[in-house]
Amino acid sequence: MSPKSVVITGANRGIGLGLVQEFVKDKNILHIIATVRDVEKATDLKAINDPHVHVLPLIVTCDKSIDSFVTKVEEIVGSDGLNLLVNNAGIAVKYLTKTKPNRSMIAEQLDVNTTSVVILTQKLLPLLTRAASKVSGDQLSVSRAAVITISSGLGSITENTTGSAVFDSLAYRMSKAAVNMFGRTLAIDLQDDHILVVNFCPGWVQTDMGGQEAMLTVEQSTSELVSSFNKLDNSHNGRYFQRNLTPFQF
Amino acid sequence: MSPKSVVITGANRGIGLGLVQEFVKDKNILHIIATVRDVEKATDLKAINDPHVHVLPLIVTCDKSIDSFVTKVEEIVGSDGLNLLVNNAGIAVKYLTKTKPNRSMIAEQLDVNTTSVVILTQKLLPLLTRAASKVSGDQLSVSRAAVITISSGLGSITENTTGSAVFDSLAYRMSKAAVNMFGRTLAIDLQDDHILVVNFCPGWVQTDMGGQEAMLTVEQSTSELVSSFNKLDNSHNGRYFQRNLTPFQF
Ligand SMILES: NC(=O)c1ccc[n+]([C@@H]2O[C@H](COP(=O)([O-])OP(=O)(O)OC[C@H]3O[C@@H](n4cnc5c(N)ncnc54)[C@H](OP(=O)(O)O)[C@@H]3O)[C@@H](O)[C@H]2O)c1
Ligand SMILES: NC(=O)c1ccc[n+]([C@@H]2O[C@H](COP(=O)([O-])OP(=O)(O)OC[C@H]3O[C@@H](n4cnc5c(N)ncnc54)[C@H](OP(=O)(O)O)[C@@H]3O)[C@@H](O)[C@H]2O)c1
Repeated sequence: MSPKSVVITGANRGIGLGLVQEFVKDKNILHIIATVRDVEKATDLKAINDPHVHVLPLIVTCDKSIDSFVTKVEEIVGSDGLNLLVNNAGIAVKYLTKTKPNRSMIAEQLDVNTTSVVILTQKLLPLLTRAASKVSGDQLSVSRAAVITISSGLGSITENTTGSAVFDSLAYRMSKAAVNMFGRTLAIDLQDDHILVVNFCPGWVQTDMGGQEAMLTVEQSTSELVSSFNKLDNSHNGRYFQRNLTPFQF
Repeated sequence: MSPKSVVITGANRGIGLGLVQEFVKDKNILHIIATVRDVEKATDLKAINDPHVHVLPLIVTCDKSIDSFVTKVEEIVGSDGLNLLVNNAGIAVKYLTKTKPNRSMIAEQLDVNTTSVVILTQKLLPLLTRAASKVSGDQLSVSRAAVITISSGLGSITENTTGSAVFDSLAYRMSKAAVNMFGRTLAIDLQDDHILVVNFCPGWVQTDMGGQEAMLTVEQSTSELVSSFNKLDNSHNGRYFQRNLTPFQF
């Protein structure tokens, strides 16, 4: 079952833009709230030109930006609340064990991919809780209320056999492991509020981050992701999956 | 086999002080370098009064402090290099999913428990590499060169069934999951340098952080930890254990 309203962060390009394009195909969705840092420059997103798509500014690392964004989301969704938050915005800071130590690079990586996800999710919780409370029973689904975070396979500690050499990923790996912990913790904390929490790896995707030699087109990744989102239920809560719902180990 | 030289961070109280007390019992160790933020106030540590113990100032969140510390460590260990770094210093910021969002509290938690561990370890790598290069063959041990990080069971994503309610641990859990990823990644990156990397949970210990109702005395935890450190070999590299070497899932 599809959500009535969805927020997707980092929607001007890459996987975020692809997710918007998939959600637009689903005519049951009333509000597709696509966030970008610079509305002026979001030409591909604005070209979608669908009445259900709302393009809103959001810098996830800025608390003031989050606050005015949440106010606008509330105006859009009203008393229905927000069904689905997709935390997609992210950066990949290049950091190897054997390069010059740089505290601020690690801090920036953790701020964007981890801390900002926590803060934005916390600030949208009242709207997610509102949507969840409209449905009775214990079932979890994206049509009720859910927080989905686009993590990465590089966030799996157990499946890490390549170290930091792959994509110069020391700091990135840490940020995604931490956001996996966030998803797991949130899922437990929000169980009584009937809010589903799941993390996904999108696969290796042709975007500015993934590079053009990546395995999947954006459309291949995002069509599988959205079809998986719509299948989620209680059995998936607090877990971490590939785009096709194959489980990852943390 | 015991190391010739060891650095322990956060050694003025709690588990760090207990680790120094255990290492002092091992007469094969030449240099026990115990770090504290304020040398003046480290009365319990200075009371040990053993010729092998060097008390040095170190604020792990301050790059300048790390740099002058590393210079002093090099003066102490000389051409032998440093055998063992124990990253123990840490804080536990109280943070619940349902409390007021606070970006700087999360940032501080991640800076102390995660980023500072990365930076200090990177800056000590030349001395660890030097020690490792003195021994031939592929064997890993704390007597050759090793990085041991005191993580926490609360850093296990898989074994997280209690959410943030236990010890108000959302931010703390994320910091320890991230430092577990660091340990795993470092282990792979440093395999060819023959530097062992292992993370431990000390158990629930009676310290300022653990509280007086905790299960273990400092001495119970640190005696088991140090005896486990001395047993580590290639089979433990890149893994995460309880104080008695029972494996944790990440
Ligand atoms: N591509 C892959 O192979 C791959 C694999 C695994 C996981 N992922 C994850 O998938 C997600 C999307 O990645 P992608 O490949 O689509 O990357 P991308 O093409 O580089 O796009 C990143 C998006 O995040 C936004 N963003 C970055 N920092 C932001 C901030 N502070 N505030 C608001 N928005 C911000 C960017 O906005 P601007 O345009 O304004 O910079 C952009 O919209 C990320 O979380 C990434 O870690 C990607
Ligand atoms: N106690 C437990 O039950 C338990 C359980 C699991 C894991 N752990 C972990 O075990 C480690 C030691 O904890 P503990 O229980 O001994 O805690 P503690 O009694 O609170 O001691 C913490 C130590 O870390 C030092 N420290 C904190 N921030 C620092 C900084 N920025 N620079 C340098 N030193 C800093 C403190 O120095 P000051 O005195 O100057 O503040 C102190 O020496 C931590 O990593 C903790 O997460 C503890």
